[in-house]
Amino acid sequence: MSDLAPVLAVIDANLDQSLARLFDLMRVPSISADPAFAKDVRRAAEWLVADLKTIGFDASVRETPGHPMVVAHHAGPAGAPHVLCYGHYDVQPVDPLDLWESDPFAPAIKDLGAGRKIITGRGSSDDKGQLMLFVEACRAFKQAQGTLPCAVTMLFEGEEESGSPSLKAFLEANARELKADVALICDTGMWDRDTPAITAGLRGLVGEEITVRAANRDLHSGEFGGAAANPLHILAKILADLHDETGRVTLPGFYDGVEETPPEVLKMWEDLDQTAETFLGPIGLAVPSGEKDRSVLELVWARPTAEVNGFAGGYAGQGFKTVIAAEAHAKVSFRLVHRQDPAKIRAAFRDFIRARLPADCSVTFNPHGGSPAIQLDFHSPLVKKAKAALTDEWPKPAAIIAAGGSIPVAGEFKEILGMDSLLVGFGLPDDRIHSPNEKYDLSSFHKGQRSWARILAALGA
Amino acid sequence: MSDLAPVLAVIDANLDQSLARLFDLMRVPSISADPAFAKDVRRAAEWLVADLKTIGFDASVRETPGHPMVVAHHAGPAGAPHVLCYGHYDVQPVDPLDLWESDPFAPAIKDLGAGRKIITGRGSSDDKGQLMLFVEACRAFKQAQGTLPCAVTMLFEGEEESGSPSLKAFLEANARELKADVALICDTGMWDRDTPAITAGLRGLVGEEITVRAANRDLHSGEFGGAAANPLHILAKILADLHDETGRVTLPGFYDGVEETPPEVLKMWEDLDQTAETFLGPIGLAVPSGEKDRSVLELVWARPTAEVNGFAGGYAGQGFKTVIAAEAHAKVSFRLVHRQDPAKIRAAFRDFIRARLPADCSVTFNPHGGSPAIQLDFHSPLVKKAKAALTDEWPKPAAIIAAGGSIPVAGEFKEILGMDSLLVGFGLPDDRIHSPNEKYDLSSFHKGQRSWARILAALGA
Repeated sequence: MSDLAPVLAVIDANLDQSLARLFDLMRVPSISADPAFAKDVRRAAEWLVADLKTIGFDASVRETPGHPMVVAHHAGPAGAPHVLCYGHYDVQPVDPLDLWESDPFAPAIKDLGAGRKIITGRGSSDDKGQLMLFVEACRAFKQAQGTLPCAVTMLFEGEEESGSPSLKAFLEANARELKADVALICDTGMWDRDTPAITAGLRGLVGEEITVRAANRDLHSGEFGGAAANPLHILAKILADLHDETGRVTLPGFYDGVEETPPEVLKMWEDLDQTAETFLGPIGLAVPSGEKDRSVLELVWARPTAEVNGFAGGYAGQGFKTVIAAEAHAKVSFRLVHRQDPAKIRAAFRDFIRARLPADCSVTFNPHGGSPAIQLDFHSPLVKKAKAALTDEWPKPAAIIAAGGSIPVAGEFKEILGMDSLLVGFGLPDDRIHSPNEKYDLSSFHKGQRSWARILAALGA
Repeated sequence: MSDLAPVLAVIDANLDQSLARLFDLMRVPSISADPAFAKDVRRAAEWLVADLKTIGFDASVRETPGHPMVVAHHAGPAGAPHVLCYGHYDVQPVDPLDLWESDPFAPAIKDLGAGRKIITGRGSSDDKGQLMLFVEACRAFKQAQGTLPCAVTMLFEGEEESGSPSLKAFLEANARELKADVALICDTGMWDRDTPAITAGLRGLVGEEITVRAANRDLHSGEFGGAAANPLHILAKILADLHDETGRVTLPGFYDGVEETPPEVLKMWEDLDQTAETFLGPIGLAVPSGEKDRSVLELVWARPTAEVNGFAGGYAGQGFKTVIAAEAHAKVSFRLVHRQDPAKIRAAFRDFIRARLPADCSVTFNPHGGSPAIQLDFHSPLVKKAKAALTDEWPKPAAIIAAGGSIPVAGEFKEILGMDSLLVGFGLPDDRIHSPNEKYDLSSFHKGQRSWARILAALGA
């Protein structure tokens, strides 16, 4: 850490220049979802390649069937770890344009008073502002020291806002080149303006569409009601049976691989001051559902779920139709944690349904998703170093949190490259990503550069 | 009964003339659902009035907000009972026209061989062929005896195929005029070609739409899954709880007023040779659902049900969406028997749902239907006389059966006029009513006239 002070000083001194570079990148309307902007997407990639070259990266635009990737390499000291920094340079569409207070592609600084300034414009937070943190941290190391503390590969994607259709094949095709010791992902948020966060857990997902069939046609409930099987009854019973009265999921073997969260982590989450009231109040609820005697944060971050995402059957339009439908349909998903096995859970769910089906009824399945959870060891050197580095930078100690949903790229890094991901980002809940008037706090942009410089130094130490 | 033989002889002798009259009526395309045929509907009513006048009825076309009613009165012997004969002279639309083997409004006789002849054309069975049985039976009495055995009121409706929108108000407005000792309804079928049937029971109906609401908006199941109430889970549990493992409905008080069917009636139904295999096989099922240890006929004719007719919630389109929906919707109906009280069952159902609702969730209800069952006393003189009269006419004894669905007019006669209905009809399962190539067996038309003559004589005796 002895040589970090000059690096941080360069970051502080060069803030205006780094902002100017971010603004250059933000002016390119790299909307990946709209084919009309394909050339702009490419232009953003080319801008990044040119900028990375100025700080000594071996950088190139790399083709995919869709928008290109940016890949850049820089060596590190002998024996230092190799990190892969991931971000995405494409942005969300901007409509409805009339809700923007200023041109989404004319970035600006806005002073909110009380010492708070924000960067306004599309991509300021998601994700151009965040990916440039990596670039600026490396630039500062180069300027202050002439070297980086680690070997660094940059991988910047141009299709993240369109579902990353080319990512998996690109990782597979370039696995040897892209494999590093750890991935650093900057596409998440802080806990609050004073508290940085490391997202150490991401729930996995298994989805299954099921269709239960009984009679060979819709029936009149007067003629057949009481004698003919009703697939809506059968499906309702199956779905109701998925949870017991304590909120636990009843699939045999469902909790295999689920670990209890360490007491000190639960204590840390408790200190985050998120209560059932603050968590559920804004959505109009008061009582946590799911397993009893667990905090809302534990429920959404560290416990698995079975969730019915949709069902349909029979007549559900205006008025009434006394029909016994021939079939009923549901979509069910399971959020997984820790070492739960998606394939085993899918199989257990299918067995669970088949066991509840009358002999003359049938079921068909259509699988969706199927990714395990990602969970960093809370006590690993990676997490400890990152936490210490962030705690040095911000007013409050870094929180080690989790996310209830998946972040696909982290899953693919794990699956294809066998690489853990450290998810640290500086977005704030009021950044309005994907919405009009997106912004990024200037402090996120400034202290975010310093944060990554500290983390890179810690990992390289 | 001594004077019935000449009446039956007149019916036999005049079969061709009665067919000619039916054909005249059938040539009028009295499709009530299509406004383009409104004049034809009226023309059919006028034809009936004119015909009834020829046999001494005080007949008139009576206006309603929709299509007119035909009402006609004829006095009977002093002290004889007063019967109201109900039928409908409107017919179903005829499309798709290209599936008809002959013009639906050009009635004809078709010889199927083996002594079987049919009347082809729209309305032959439903219900012009059946309502003319009343008219022709009365005509034969007049011709043979100059009198009718009972006082007879004819009520022929012109909107039955359009949901009878004017019927209730018409009955209420003319209750004093229309009230009789019993209604005779000819709009049902025989058990088989040799076995006439008296429909002595009709299940009632209570319908309820329910919407369960939890959060104030749709939620992401990653962000909130495990902590936020899912209304699809709540609704599935409610619907699953409606039946116990023996197939009984679990609503408190649901079986109040339900009687066990007399053993001799169960024996009669058993002799009808309808098994689970013959009843469920054609719809692709094998195992009766519903209450255990009861025959399929008892289940659909004499046992009440709770049936989910539709449900919908969350995302049910193509693909998958990991949403926790804000609300879930279901339509549930109850088929009632004997003396079950629709209002009590609706209230019990609402209480049942409220008792299963988490404190921060809500439910709204939208009632549909609400009619009690209709059940004639199997041992009443009415049923006994009709059964004996029919048994005299047909190869096999009359079956006293029930219908799983309601026949609204019977409910309205009971509710508004306090009058039981005797439902006897001569349709056959292969009559293709509501479909192309509707037909009515000539034997139904001939022996149907004789059957009603026998019943009228028996009631008047």
